[in-house]
Amino acid sequence: MSKLVIVGTLAFDAIETPFGKTDKILGGAATFIGLSASQFDVDSAVVSIIGGDFPQEYLDLLSSKNINVSGVEIVKEGKTFFWSGKYHNDMNTRDTLVTELNTLADFNPVVPTNYCDAEVVMLGNLHPLVQSSVLNQMTTKPKLVILDTMNFWMNSALTDLHDVIKRIDVITINDEEARQLTGEYSLVVAARKIHKMGPKYVVIKKGEHGALLFHNDNVFYAPALPLEEVFDPTGAGDTFAGGFAGYIAKTGDTSFENMKNAVIYGSTLASFCVEKFGTERMKTLTHDEVHKRLLQFKKLTQFDIKLT
Amino acid sequence: MSKLVIVGTLAFDAIETPFGKTDKILGGAATFIGLSASQFDVDSAVVSIIGGDFPQEYLDLLSSKNINVSGVEIVKEGKTFFWSGKYHNDMNTRDTLVTELNTLADFNPVVPTNYCDAEVVMLGNLHPLVQSSVLNQMTTKPKLVILDTMNFWMNSALTDLHDVIKRIDVITINDEEARQLTGEYSLVVAARKIHKMGPKYVVIKKGEHGALLFHNDNVFYAPALPLEEVFDPTGAGDTFAGGFAGYIAKTGDTSFENMKNAVIYGSTLASFCVEKFGTERMKTLTHDEVHKRLLQFKKLTQFDIKLT
Repeated sequence: MSKLVIVGTLAFDAIETPFGKTDKILGGAATFIGLSASQFDVDSAVVSIIGGDFPQEYLDLLSSKNINVSGVEIVKEGKTFFWSGKYHNDMNTRDTLVTELNTLADFNPVVPTNYCDAEVVMLGNLHPLVQSSVLNQMTTKPKLVILDTMNFWMNSALTDLHDVIKRIDVITINDEEARQLTGEYSLVVAARKIHKMGPKYVVIKKGEHGALLFHNDNVFYAPALPLEEVFDPTGAGDTFAGGFAGYIAKTGDTSFENMKNAVIYGSTLASFCVEKFGTERMKTLTHDEVHKRLLQFKKLTQFDIKLT
Repeated sequence: MSKLVIVGTLAFDAIETPFGKTDKILGGAATFIGLSASQFDVDSAVVSIIGGDFPQEYLDLLSSKNINVSGVEIVKEGKTFFWSGKYHNDMNTRDTLVTELNTLADFNPVVPTNYCDAEVVMLGNLHPLVQSSVLNQMTTKPKLVILDTMNFWMNSALTDLHDVIKRIDVITINDEEARQLTGEYSLVVAARKIHKMGPKYVVIKKGEHGALLFHNDNVFYAPALPLEEVFDPTGAGDTFAGGFAGYIAKTGDTSFENMKNAVIYGSTLASFCVEKFGTERMKTLTHDEVHKRLLQFKKLTQFDIKLT
């Protein structure tokens, strides 16, 4: 089994959806990535930064899922990154109400020594220089580096973003961001342009419309599971990425055929994440529930046309 | 092999897209449905109405595809239905510029006698009373009745629409229309409500995001093929429906498993339709091209996770 390094935020989120609102609850990209990847019992470590206000029980939760937290810097006198957002009725769009960087503003990630040889690296959405810094610390070339990013960095740190994108294998990005990054409306053309920026594999996330995996002229599509109700989309993209990374770390197989499975696992895990607020659903998720939902994905997508 | 009756418009379309514009060209729901279904070499007949201005060569085109046109009423002194529309840059939204009903305003469909026992009936988008009238003429109960409709009839003839929806087996409808018809945002909940209105099978079309097939608690998803360029979406929904109906007519198998295949065929044929203006691509489409694209759909969607 491979080691998995995850860099990303540990955060407080305050969320408002048409179904209700929360006070500050556990959130952050590394949280969702870690919880999702933990379904594969991989040896993972989170690299992040928090303030003295971050409850020990949250760290204990991660530890209980066998996520190593020795790479989490605690700034006792500092405050933890805080994000607050409100979802519109369609759940596909949201307004950011508050972003307090706090300790995140001075984050210098330090990868624990015994994870500097990790085979899989998941660079969660952060400043591209922070993402690059993690890659610089790896003592052996990882088998697979996956990067998630967002439009914010395209607007504020595009050169740095291009620099780190050159060094990675897989990028996960949503459809609007892929269009912004390339200036192309067609996702097929956008993916081709992103290939030329570096990543051999391009995953374009389309929310309730699923995700596309591109590799040269190959393309694979994983739908999102049609749900009666999307309760809270927060963390769905990170949960998708965590499932992808965790499955690759577990299998050690970076072929395109196996990445199809990784994308299906990502979609499967994301379909749970949105069922409750924040991490509530992922905290209690069992292998058996995941297994049952994978069977649903098979029924949802598999067909048997006899081609004559 | 089953007989297939298709009721719908034969029309002139004038189309403007970001790629260019056309004069009046061949269009209409029955045209696209018929051309698409003709890929299956079924015994089909179109029931429609045209004016004296409709070129004989258009009827000859349909006949050349083995589509019976004896049910097409020709009003020599009348004019053919005309629609003109302009697509926005995203190709998912369009403005209707002109709608001239012309002869369509007084359309009383007459199903040719030798097609009143057809096993499959495809009710293209028309006034629901016209759709009902076709069903009234069937002398034996069809094996499968498929209905397509649109928001226009929900706004102007909702009671008549509900009356015909009670009598059908499969409805094809787009996502926004499903939401309007049911008042539900979730497509899963919307499909359940539509089931209760009559149809055992509900197909929700999502344009570039594919299509969902619902049957009780079963759901199947067919993506749209990711394309470099959507040239003209006109007729894509009808081409989808024609592929669905044609495949069912050819196989005579109305099981849910076979309907999955029908949905995949529908998506496959629609992916060709949008490559050129109007019927241009469908006119020349070969079995071999369809076969190759079905293989693309398999590669696009099929995966092989070993569930332990």
